[in-house]
Amino acid sequence: MKYVIGLDYGTDSARALVVNAETGDTVATSVKYYPRWSEGKYCDPAANRYRQHPQDYIDVLEATVKDAIAQCPAGTAEQVVGIAFDTTGSTPAFTDRTGMPLAMLPEFAENPNAMFILWKDHTAVREAAEVNELCRKWNPDYTAYEGGIYSSEWYWAKALHVLREDEQVRKAAYSIVEHCEWLPALLTGVTSSDKIVRSRCACGHKAMWHKKWGGLPSEEFLTALDPLLSGFRARLFEETETADKPVGRLTPEWAERLGLTTGVVVAGGAFDCHMGAVGAGVTPHTLVRVIGTSTCDVMVADYEELGDKLIRGICGQVDGSVIPGMIGLEAGQSGFGDIYAWFKRLLEFPLKKIVAGMKWLSAADRERIVSEAADRIIPALTAEAERIPIEESTVLATDWMNGRRTPDANQLLTGTVTGLTLGSSAPRVFRALVEATAYGTKAIVDRFVSEGVSIDSVIGIGGIALKSPFVMQTMSDVLNMPIKVCNTDQACALGAAMFAATAAGVYPKVEDAIAAMNSGFAKEYTPDAQNAAAYRELYKRYLEIGAFTEQHC
Amino acid sequence: MKYVIGLDYGTDSARALVVNAETGDTVATSVKYYPRWSEGKYCDPAANRYRQHPQDYIDVLEATVKDAIAQCPAGTAEQVVGIAFDTTGSTPAFTDRTGMPLAMLPEFAENPNAMFILWKDHTAVREAAEVNELCRKWNPDYTAYEGGIYSSEWYWAKALHVLREDEQVRKAAYSIVEHCEWLPALLTGVTSSDKIVRSRCACGHKAMWHKKWGGLPSEEFLTALDPLLSGFRARLFEETETADKPVGRLTPEWAERLGLTTGVVVAGGAFDCHMGAVGAGVTPHTLVRVIGTSTCDVMVADYEELGDKLIRGICGQVDGSVIPGMIGLEAGQSGFGDIYAWFKRLLEFPLKKIVAGMKWLSAADRERIVSEAADRIIPALTAEAERIPIEESTVLATDWMNGRRTPDANQLLTGTVTGLTLGSSAPRVFRALVEATAYGTKAIVDRFVSEGVSIDSVIGIGGIALKSPFVMQTMSDVLNMPIKVCNTDQACALGAAMFAATAAGVYPKVEDAIAAMNSGFAKEYTPDAQNAAAYRELYKRYLEIGAFTEQHC
Repeated sequence: MKYVIGLDYGTDSARALVVNAETGDTVATSVKYYPRWSEGKYCDPAANRYRQHPQDYIDVLEATVKDAIAQCPAGTAEQVVGIAFDTTGSTPAFTDRTGMPLAMLPEFAENPNAMFILWKDHTAVREAAEVNELCRKWNPDYTAYEGGIYSSEWYWAKALHVLREDEQVRKAAYSIVEHCEWLPALLTGVTSSDKIVRSRCACGHKAMWHKKWGGLPSEEFLTALDPLLSGFRARLFEETETADKPVGRLTPEWAERLGLTTGVVVAGGAFDCHMGAVGAGVTPHTLVRVIGTSTCDVMVADYEELGDKLIRGICGQVDGSVIPGMIGLEAGQSGFGDIYAWFKRLLEFPLKKIVAGMKWLSAADRERIVSEAADRIIPALTAEAERIPIEESTVLATDWMNGRRTPDANQLLTGTVTGLTLGSSAPRVFRALVEATAYGTKAIVDRFVSEGVSIDSVIGIGGIALKSPFVMQTMSDVLNMPIKVCNTDQACALGAAMFAATAAGVYPKVEDAIAAMNSGFAKEYTPDAQNAAAYRELYKRYLEIGAFTEQHC
Repeated sequence: MKYVIGLDYGTDSARALVVNAETGDTVATSVKYYPRWSEGKYCDPAANRYRQHPQDYIDVLEATVKDAIAQCPAGTAEQVVGIAFDTTGSTPAFTDRTGMPLAMLPEFAENPNAMFILWKDHTAVREAAEVNELCRKWNPDYTAYEGGIYSSEWYWAKALHVLREDEQVRKAAYSIVEHCEWLPALLTGVTSSDKIVRSRCACGHKAMWHKKWGGLPSEEFLTALDPLLSGFRARLFEETETADKPVGRLTPEWAERLGLTTGVVVAGGAFDCHMGAVGAGVTPHTLVRVIGTSTCDVMVADYEELGDKLIRGICGQVDGSVIPGMIGLEAGQSGFGDIYAWFKRLLEFPLKKIVAGMKWLSAADRERIVSEAADRIIPALTAEAERIPIEESTVLATDWMNGRRTPDANQLLTGTVTGLTLGSSAPRVFRALVEATAYGTKAIVDRFVSEGVSIDSVIGIGGIALKSPFVMQTMSDVLNMPIKVCNTDQACALGAAMFAATAAGVYPKVEDAIAAMNSGFAKEYTPDAQNAAAYRELYKRYLEIGAFTEQHC
């Protein structure tokens, strides 16, 4: 038997899956929360500053792997042949000359600017605007393959922001590493920053790396952005690798720390959604959606079919970011489950502001009422909303409460609810919000299609895909397309396991790993023809309202 | 001393005020609920059928007058010189040849079609559409002075609906009487329907009566509408009277039943908002707003100034409907407090659907939580909403959740909330709704002004005017205009008392009664210059969003 370990590093926790490399069966799972992060350390939510200590990543690595292996039959550890990582991103950190994140050095151990800058850190808004301004007048436009708009959540904006803000870090900063690159480097004993294997996925989608212009943006560009960036390019990299390539093998020290052998191959790293798409069984013409608070939508297209053609208004397109040899395409909705959560918070007002203060009830009773009621709001709304006939879907909303990521990124957009009458109940408004998130999905699908990337079906993974048949059926009806839901709640870690198996040579290609190791589907939603016809008309109104608010609001 | 009695018949109850005719001081007040109506009799809310038994009106008349007089010093009853009525409207009933509503006859005592058809009864939607259709092709357009659109809430639509529906009533129906006409006729001993004094206010605003076309619509028109209406015009009336004219004196029987003298003069009747405007001290260039679930907005304009000029998009304009010798103008918002109540209902969802079912709490506790929390939602929203700085008024709404009455009636319109983000809390949305109702007010004010009826100030009466400083200050800021709030919560009944005093000869004119008997003002709101400037800009967006939704939604 051969086993592989897929490690998925999320925002709050990491999970390790021990997977049978031949069947894809999950043998053990372990989830651990980042200890320092859980205490709220190094973060300032009011300033949108979110930093993670590299030691957190090491702590959960050891804890999850050892815990998962301990659940397996004796002898399993010796049969582990590969390990791979997916992480959030862009989550970069400055390193010293050895490739070690600065926060691992004693003098930087408590400095948030020396730590990983989590994907959702928004401290670099000004720097992102400067990148965009410069790109608009530069030839080539380095944002071309990243959707045309550089984000404050990405690599260069974050690096520049820290360089400007922190003199101590500025003096010590030699190179930059993404979270998904650092873990493989660490485990394989890299001691020089120029030996770090760079992730095609991370660099292509977030660092403006593209082979067309010889790698990263030119030294002239970076220096024009800010002289503080001078010299970094030469110390960084020209080449990147896809995640199916082995980075190396476990060092004796790490083999011992993890209870594995030095024969274990470590694969390249990539972002969670990209490996999640692989775990979900992505193929050309299938849109894989990771559906949670927001969505991350991933596709692959044959290079022969798409080439370097730019897909207008989509987040990014990178050769090999998902499956080696194919173009990985990324899109997404800025708000999905977050929009339902917003409505839930709205409805919690009388609970949190009134019931919570009813002194004639005991404190324990008040707390129980507020928390039980809060937990049941979305299920209760869903139960009533799904009984409303489509002819009564007269409330119409847009899904831009958190701006719009794709198509055509515009973070300044806001949401609208229209068609309101005095009879518009909470479930009716909720139904409109569910429909709005489905319309936002259709806008992405339609854009792919109109740009020449045809889509036959959708695969859903993530919390909402598994938990809300109402949301998924509505999406199927609006898209007029079947939607399959993966038979695993750990598609990202399973995808990492597929990369581990490929890197370890169990399979020649990632596609073979998918064919052998996929989890199958738990459920398939098929569109109702009558609903689909009604939604076709309602979707036109969504587009009209969207166009109006985009122009005027 | 001379006293007068003002009787205000509302939707659920009537109130009698005994007022000092010289000072305007209220000596006693009595409120009584309609007994049959309180039991839900003769109504079918699911069918929007709302009927009131004439005996209810008689019961509360006797009860309130006797109760109020009993509160006064001995000898007051003998000093009462006048009585006047205001009622809801259009609230018509069929009568026999004697002018008695059919439901007062034993054979019709339990027939809802023989009763008064309350203003909010919407059973005659089809008939109203037929009136409008015919008016569009008829010359003259009889709706011209009633805003150009005939409503299902009005006189002819209701009469025709009942004639079609009820053969028994059809055979017995000789004439039609409005609630505000019947009470004066009853008390003065009218025994022939052609002797009923017809209300200028009711007939001019709701029955398409206008002196320009010789009174009611022509026999040809009514017959073309439906042959069932043939003959009614000749049995109805050509003349109408303003409410300052005496209708007669109390019959000996009624003097005895009410404990008053046969010297008491009975004034003409009118609608509640119109007499309320008089009670509030209406003058030209002042908009009087009765602010409750919806608003009724009343103005007066000098006949010399306005003449027969049509005010585009306003509900009605009738010579003498408010103050004799002036044009009474009526407008209003279809939803005002109802819009806040809608949002409250939305937020009640977790209380009514979840907390109410928490079996681990006692039934009594559950009931208390739900009802206490519901009562405190609007105050809690208000407390937080008024602390939001105007620069953060980024959520924007329209006020058409119940359609739009004026300017330019369109009952099909719906409401919109836009500018929503994931941070838009319940108080922020509530603030937007309050601002929306103020924008709706401004749209009415602007229409009057653009049509040549200038407005200097606003007087507010009704529940919300007295109870919500936040709503009133927002309205003042949006209008950039001072708003006074009457020092009485009984402006309608006080207005009726002023008509009673004028009819009884205490004053030569209604204006003199206003000058002597007005209650003064409890409060004046003055606009904040900075807020007014900000709202000027936001109001433009309200108009843009409104224009868009009117065209597309």
